[in-house]
Amino acid sequence: MTAAGIRIQKEDKDMEYINLERLKEDLLELAQIGKTDTGINRIAYSNEFWEACLMVKKKMTDAGMSARIDSVGNVIGVLPGRTDRRIVTGSHLDSVPDGGIFDGCLGVMAALEAVRTLKEHGIVLTHTLEVVAFAEEEGVVIGGLLGSKAYAGLPFSEKQTTLMPQIIGISPVQARTCRHQASPIDCFVELHIEQGGVLEAEHKDIGIVEAIVGIRRFDVEFPGVANHAGSTPMYLRDDALLKAARFIERVNQLVKEIDSDMVGTAGSIHTKPDACNIIAGSAKLILELRSVREESMDQVLARLEEEFLPDGMEIRQTFGQPPVLMSDVVQNAIRAAGDSLGLKTHSMVSGAGHDTMVMAEITASGMIFVPSKGGVSHSKDEWTDWPDVGRGADALLQTLKELDKV
Amino acid sequence: MTAAGIRIQKEDKDMEYINLERLKEDLLELAQIGKTDTGINRIAYSNEFWEACLMVKKKMTDAGMSARIDSVGNVIGVLPGRTDRRIVTGSHLDSVPDGGIFDGCLGVMAALEAVRTLKEHGIVLTHTLEVVAFAEEEGVVIGGLLGSKAYAGLPFSEKQTTLMPQIIGISPVQARTCRHQASPIDCFVELHIEQGGVLEAEHKDIGIVEAIVGIRRFDVEFPGVANHAGSTPMYLRDDALLKAARFIERVNQLVKEIDSDMVGTAGSIHTKPDACNIIAGSAKLILELRSVREESMDQVLARLEEEFLPDGMEIRQTFGQPPVLMSDVVQNAIRAAGDSLGLKTHSMVSGAGHDTMVMAEITASGMIFVPSKGGVSHSKDEWTDWPDVGRGADALLQTLKELDKV
Repeated sequence: MTAAGIRIQKEDKDMEYINLERLKEDLLELAQIGKTDTGINRIAYSNEFWEACLMVKKKMTDAGMSARIDSVGNVIGVLPGRTDRRIVTGSHLDSVPDGGIFDGCLGVMAALEAVRTLKEHGIVLTHTLEVVAFAEEEGVVIGGLLGSKAYAGLPFSEKQTTLMPQIIGISPVQARTCRHQASPIDCFVELHIEQGGVLEAEHKDIGIVEAIVGIRRFDVEFPGVANHAGSTPMYLRDDALLKAARFIERVNQLVKEIDSDMVGTAGSIHTKPDACNIIAGSAKLILELRSVREESMDQVLARLEEEFLPDGMEIRQTFGQPPVLMSDVVQNAIRAAGDSLGLKTHSMVSGAGHDTMVMAEITASGMIFVPSKGGVSHSKDEWTDWPDVGRGADALLQTLKELDKV
Repeated sequence: MTAAGIRIQKEDKDMEYINLERLKEDLLELAQIGKTDTGINRIAYSNEFWEACLMVKKKMTDAGMSARIDSVGNVIGVLPGRTDRRIVTGSHLDSVPDGGIFDGCLGVMAALEAVRTLKEHGIVLTHTLEVVAFAEEEGVVIGGLLGSKAYAGLPFSEKQTTLMPQIIGISPVQARTCRHQASPIDCFVELHIEQGGVLEAEHKDIGIVEAIVGIRRFDVEFPGVANHAGSTPMYLRDDALLKAARFIERVNQLVKEIDSDMVGTAGSIHTKPDACNIIAGSAKLILELRSVREESMDQVLARLEEEFLPDGMEIRQTFGQPPVLMSDVVQNAIRAAGDSLGLKTHSMVSGAGHDTMVMAEITASGMIFVPSKGGVSHSKDEWTDWPDVGRGADALLQTLKELDKV
């Protein structure tokens, strides 16, 4: 069944629908920029990135918006409403190395398509609509969420402060002036692929994000004694990798036991001397915890310390980002939009970080998710079926209209 | 208490003792060759290796032996007895990268010192004594036990067959002619550091090796799905590293449960994509099992396959070496020697491979172990106290005399 086919069945004469064919063409056109055999390579501030920015700016102008690219590389299009109060929507154009075609781009192109649809139906919103493609969301070059931080006037990380003048030639102070501070922002909404497998597993059309998880990352090291793997009997061993293996399994158990919404991951491990015939003298791994509840992460950490400090474990937090709750106003608008379209909505947490985390610091914010096939993202295998893309873009359009009523 | 002090207390007027000071000087002189800040680097066929060979050959000649270096780099010294029947003893001079000063060298230098002691006491054995420093025992360059295989006329591995002409410029056929086949060999004995912590833990003076373990090495790979570590809930994960962690712990349990003499080690593990925020899509590790009982290894393997094949585990044997039993005749001779010297002996298995494994294919063979501090070897921290060196060399001398009676 085609996307159009699905929508024709449900079409309501009193409702505006986006043009999925046009949106698909836009996304596929964008997907040509940075395309390689191993995935999309449209790293922030690369030639491909700027090419994409210029393409989107032109499409915004063609759609009747005034558009500009600011000093950090945010592409900002403005559709005037009856007042200067703003609703902001958007996502990002930069990719991870070997990324997919939807991550970020969907939220930008669907917003552009929503603007076109409003225009075609002669609808003028009360709010002025601002569509933003935020720069360097992925953080591959200078550090994540750079564009949205600049837009929102929020402080940059130490790394960003150092690298920004070197890489894009402007000072952090210059970057923070980017935000259009003259106009009050009432709310922000971002459409994004889920990047997980929940919507697919639960057979839902769109996700309504309740919160974006907090992240804590730790360097964990277990000491051992690097001895001959043949001549050291089991009872005389001090095996660092064995301790690390027990730790990895215990993380898995504790995370599930303490908070069913939480995740805990060890994806990277390295031993020394890393030989087949020498007992590991040290094992280093990275532990990452993500939860919308700080107390759940505290609890897992306390249990791990209680159980593994006696093994000589050294644990050091290297990164921390608190959970961010989404606005009830935006969640309700998404739910109303989903209901009006007859979509199966699902309230859920976002396990990944997004520009919405930054925007939530300055305005009522929320996110709409569409299903990711097999939960895959940051990969050339990242995929969302076109009918799901259409449903997401329709939900975004209706959500903007709902928010405009508030 | 000095080494000399210890022995004076126990000295028996009817027994010959080696000169520990002289042996110590020899070992320390040899330790200058290839000495670096990070340990001994006397890799087979390096300049340092050949320098050590020439030094040992000269010391053999000085001790009244006829000495030669054969085409694969074995240094062979002959002390004529009353018959042409041979007792062979020795070990190796090559080191691993960043090795210690005793591994191999002890067995060569103690044999040389035993010869000197026999000479000084005017003792002529019935057997002709052959002292051999086998080349490339460690297998860093061409493949392990090369010199003893050449000496014994045994077949080389495929790798050795390929590399030998390239590296030492002789064909495997030429190498196999090295053995002095004209003279029958009655037995072989090798003095070596234990390279494990058993003698130290058990407070024993010397170890009598009953068997050298068999070794099986396996490449083990667990598949998973490399997904976003934030947006993939625990119940939707297929985590390769978690499976590998469970495997590592299970190896440890099974090995101890099935055979208390056995060892099982995973010292090397690598994940892909090896990122802090991506669930491991694959985890590769190397499993090594060592046991004197083939059936114990069979049993562990069967259990692991039963439990982990359903996880998608792929397991492939990459190396196999059967266990080698030591000769009762040689073990009894070592025991008698130890008893006559008032030493605390301990029957044990060797978890490491040695030239004795090769010699056991052609003659009655055995090994004497001396304690290794903390079980450490293949390291600049490898250490055996000088009194233990003296006891080991005395045990070797008396063992040679015992074997001569057989």
